[in-house]
Amino acid sequence: MSKANDPKLKSWVSVPENSDFPIQNLPFGIFSTSYLNKRVGVAIGNNIIDMDYLLVNDFFKGIELPSEVFTQPYLNDFISLGKKTTNAVRERLSEILQEDNPELRDSEEMRERALIPMEDATMQMPVKVGDYTDFYSSIEHATNIGTMIRDPENALMPNWRHLPVGYHGRSSTIIPSGIPIQRPLGQTKAPDAENPTFGPTKRLDFELEMAFITGKATQIGDSVNINEADDYIFGMVVFNDWSARDIQVWEYQPLGPFLAKNFASSISPWIVTIEALEPFRVAQPKQDPEVLPYLQSKGDNNFDINLEVDIKPENSEAVTVCRSNHKYLYWNIKQQLAHQTINGCSINVGDMYASGTISGPTEDSYGSMMELSWKGTKPVKMKDGTERVFLHDGDTVTMRGWSEKDGVRVGFGEVTAKILPAREQ
Amino acid sequence: MSKANDPKLKSWVSVPENSDFPIQNLPFGIFSTSYLNKRVGVAIGNNIIDMDYLLVNDFFKGIELPSEVFTQPYLNDFISLGKKTTNAVRERLSEILQEDNPELRDSEEMRERALIPMEDATMQMPVKVGDYTDFYSSIEHATNIGTMIRDPENALMPNWRHLPVGYHGRSSTIIPSGIPIQRPLGQTKAPDAENPTFGPTKRLDFELEMAFITGKATQIGDSVNINEADDYIFGMVVFNDWSARDIQVWEYQPLGPFLAKNFASSISPWIVTIEALEPFRVAQPKQDPEVLPYLQSKGDNNFDINLEVDIKPENSEAVTVCRSNHKYLYWNIKQQLAHQTINGCSINVGDMYASGTISGPTEDSYGSMMELSWKGTKPVKMKDGTERVFLHDGDTVTMRGWSEKDGVRVGFGEVTAKILPAREQ
Repeated sequence: MSKANDPKLKSWVSVPENSDFPIQNLPFGIFSTSYLNKRVGVAIGNNIIDMDYLLVNDFFKGIELPSEVFTQPYLNDFISLGKKTTNAVRERLSEILQEDNPELRDSEEMRERALIPMEDATMQMPVKVGDYTDFYSSIEHATNIGTMIRDPENALMPNWRHLPVGYHGRSSTIIPSGIPIQRPLGQTKAPDAENPTFGPTKRLDFELEMAFITGKATQIGDSVNINEADDYIFGMVVFNDWSARDIQVWEYQPLGPFLAKNFASSISPWIVTIEALEPFRVAQPKQDPEVLPYLQSKGDNNFDINLEVDIKPENSEAVTVCRSNHKYLYWNIKQQLAHQTINGCSINVGDMYASGTISGPTEDSYGSMMELSWKGTKPVKMKDGTERVFLHDGDTVTMRGWSEKDGVRVGFGEVTAKILPAREQ
Repeated sequence: MSKANDPKLKSWVSVPENSDFPIQNLPFGIFSTSYLNKRVGVAIGNNIIDMDYLLVNDFFKGIELPSEVFTQPYLNDFISLGKKTTNAVRERLSEILQEDNPELRDSEEMRERALIPMEDATMQMPVKVGDYTDFYSSIEHATNIGTMIRDPENALMPNWRHLPVGYHGRSSTIIPSGIPIQRPLGQTKAPDAENPTFGPTKRLDFELEMAFITGKATQIGDSVNINEADDYIFGMVVFNDWSARDIQVWEYQPLGPFLAKNFASSISPWIVTIEALEPFRVAQPKQDPEVLPYLQSKGDNNFDINLEVDIKPENSEAVTVCRSNHKYLYWNIKQQLAHQTINGCSINVGDMYASGTISGPTEDSYGSMMELSWKGTKPVKMKDGTERVFLHDGDTVTMRGWSEKDGVRVGFGEVTAKILPAREQ
């Protein structure tokens, strides 16, 4: 395990209690300020390291880095340098930030230029996403949905335990935390109606997911061997796969979800590296029946990442409606990547692979309103006395993810977005 | 209609009889040669115009063009300039190439530099594809498939006549004509087997489609009004949506096709502009029931484009197994684009939208082996005495598309690819 993960490390940069961004994390993102164009940053406490400033000032001597790599508007170029380089950067940064290292600590001028307060910055999309896949890897979620909309006796499709079911989504509408979501318009049809009608979705939902980002490309015809999958995975984000359930149920047969999903997906803007998540590896649920050899992975490949979803009505306080965990996923990320490429499908740096809704075994761990309100039959109470079966205009949905062990908390920050009314027709 | 479409126009560049690329066409593509890096070309007869050479030599005076626009490795930057500019370039090029125009014709040196014989060039991907959608817009194809795999009495899903069904595909594996296709590996399950097995697909198929390419972007939250859709559509290509039917039938429930489709899609490398296709507009089939207002289009929005598919076994002659036409499509391209964006889904320049398999009403016009061999029950004969229900290793599949009217043939060239055996396991 990387030296940068040592729980004993402390930084001279102040890190508030319960911060997601201690020196053991060092996630990468893209930020801008009123005076700096989009560029690469690393989070620590309530500050962002301007990586280009450190590069220009020779802090990364000995690591081969193109001179413009940290002033790109996306992380793709940096990630493309490969794990050897990106890990060396994270480890060198850890050194620079350690409490007993005076290099940057003791130069007030450099320190002030290198550390940007988060409140002065706007977080941007961290990567240019080429292709985006959405898996369906939570057995609890798939079972809940299958029970509600198909057949409780045969909730899981016959293929579900044999392969990580997934489908391609829209990459153009993946957006960073903070950007409001417009309630989408679309076709829906009431079960008893003869014809569909047009209008704003009445069943706007969130889906609590996580997504990994590939950091290494393959050629068409090649596959990623499951034992080498880690080398292709740069890191992860929290992912809100906004869904319009009434549009979905009308459109999705026989080719899958389309307009019900592609109007927006929101992500947490900091990519936490797989290396920073190493201490939090846990076993996934036992897979039964045994999977085919190309899907058999070694070691612990889920992560103990606590996940929460809040709903905050326009004029009231936030209520935490869901507490789940990445560890519940039936299919792990190596299996997802091995499956995605087993047919020779090529991947690129910056591609995104979401988990599907991560529901847990208990009713308060379900990762969507569809499940929490059990298809609208169990309203969820807000603090202002109103109830939710699906989301209302003005609601703000916030998801958080963090791991905790040995007194170290490695987190993702949050992905949040407010729901705006539909466009006028 | 553009002057460049005048059937009376003739070029001083020799255009063989039955060429797809007369002066009335002028499709755009990206080519390279042993001495030229990837760059923008326009096809005429058996030659490619090196557009950068004309630009550098001041042939486009009066049209605002960035100096590097024709030496980019993709057409995206050129297309992004907008229809006013791209049409002006096509019209100016038409002038330059007209038989009575001496500007280029009479300078042997310039002519030899500007005109590259097609046989000396390699065609490349014309655009960098951001997102790719595959529609399902042929009523004959959807009815055939529904009849075969579901219920002949209810072959079309209830939504089919109300919206252009579509789903997102993989953009990383869209490749230009000429690149061989490796038979994909994957999971399949025989109907009577308890568990799936792993190996090369036994039901490799083509799908005869066409695809349009967007030339104008929108912001998230915006929609393309159907009456303005033409302004967003740059042009079209012929599209082979390779499919593995046995993988598809096992994986596709409930979220749609995934690995059965994303191993490769081949396209014809020349983008024929919508402007060049104007003379060939025809009405689409009557839509019944009437569609919702956001899908109601004016005028003729299908195109009379003849489509053919050949299969050539390794050591035998090609057989034309399918003759179809773009005009059969139930949903037109404006309806597809209006539907894609009605929920606020943003689009980018270079995005691709395939039609779905274009089958016609007769058995010899079906656009896939699945339909031609009626799920394997009606083998198709080759000239060497062998039969096909699906594709064999060594087969080369070639698709062609062309329009013809008033003695002018505007074509797409071909999209061809040979099938290689599966990778060793």
